[in-house]
Amino acid sequence: MIGIVGGSGSGKTTLARSVCANLGAEHAVRIEHDAYYHDLSHMEPPERAVVNFDHPRALDNARLGDDLDALRAGRAVPELRYCFATHTRKDVVSLIDPHPVVVVEGILLFSVDVLRPRFDLRVFVDTPPDMRFLRRLRRDVAERGRTVESVCSQYLDTVRPMHEEFVEPAKEVADLVVSGMRPIETTTREVAAEIARRRERATRARPSS
Amino acid sequence: MIGIVGGSGSGKTTLARSVCANLGAEHAVRIEHDAYYHDLSHMEPPERAVVNFDHPRALDNARLGDDLDALRAGRAVPELRYCFATHTRKDVVSLIDPHPVVVVEGILLFSVDVLRPRFDLRVFVDTPPDMRFLRRLRRDVAERGRTVESVCSQYLDTVRPMHEEFVEPAKEVADLVVSGMRPIETTTREVAAEIARRRERATRARPSS
Repeated sequence: MIGIVGGSGSGKTTLARSVCANLGAEHAVRIEHDAYYHDLSHMEPPERAVVNFDHPRALDNARLGDDLDALRAGRAVPELRYCFATHTRKDVVSLIDPHPVVVVEGILLFSVDVLRPRFDLRVFVDTPPDMRFLRRLRRDVAERGRTVESVCSQYLDTVRPMHEEFVEPAKEVADLVVSGMRPIETTTREVAAEIARRRERATRARPSS
Repeated sequence: MIGIVGGSGSGKTTLARSVCANLGAEHAVRIEHDAYYHDLSHMEPPERAVVNFDHPRALDNARLGDDLDALRAGRAVPELRYCFATHTRKDVVSLIDPHPVVVVEGILLFSVDVLRPRFDLRVFVDTPPDMRFLRRLRRDVAERGRTVESVCSQYLDTVRPMHEEFVEPAKEVADLVVSGMRPIETTTREVAAEIARRRERATRARPSS
């Protein structure tokens, strides 16, 4: 159970995908904490507009905890998907099967008491704040059609203060801090090597059959 | 002779203006290092487009050094002005008179050997890089009609690497580091108090007449 945390725009999704690709689809599966946002379909749009999506309570952390336990115990779990346009959960159409390695990514995984202890390896992707903001800006303007001003005010109103309060302190509890500025191949190798080391250690610790 | 340095978007212009206003127009005058950019009117526009304006050699530092010496010696100097649209120097229309306090602001003042020793007080405005980039972005998009992409690529190509190489190390040689995140009134008082302390010290060191 690998947790990959880093601020918005740090490159954690790229790293999580790359680590899974490196291990191979049979051995590793990727889960996004973002898929566990609470369904807000009961709220009116003006109410939804003021929800702080960078705060841990915006996510169904208990459910992710249960799902990680189920996967560890060898049971499949529904693959949640979330629609960010309407803030509602999409219908479940597939299952996530248990895999030897489960890579979970999200900004808040290590800041939530019910989640932090569930990871066997805690990785923090450390990227300078100006680079994180710049990447987020480019993505939000290009892919989501947002205006510069809406990206800036959201960053100042919630993203930045929540990062300082919840995300940055997660670096202290990480087992491995990797730089989000180095080539993805390098960082992927670092994480894959640490996973291999820990799996080997765990195998040796088990009584031989 | 006060130098105020800080990265692009750190708030050094606001601080320099505020310090001058606090001291009063009779006692303090403000000079921008930016006014000393080399005149590039001899270059063709494609040539100008590739000039690195965040590098110390883009500025006429020897001339600023001479002007600061002249002001210290009690002589007026021409007030230089620069047109950023055409990268040419505007005609001189007025003079800067000598003042008890001269506040010079620029990103590179402490990184240039002919300038750094000329300041009696070196102030560095320390602002997190994401805030600096965000302020620069807002200003360039709103006031200069730039596109998001042009602001982002200029930041990555020259502003950021030059900041790391020339601006950030200036913090080490500063006498006073002030936070660019605190209210301007607070920072202005800090700088004004330090100026008063140093002027008093200098007065006492002088033989009484």
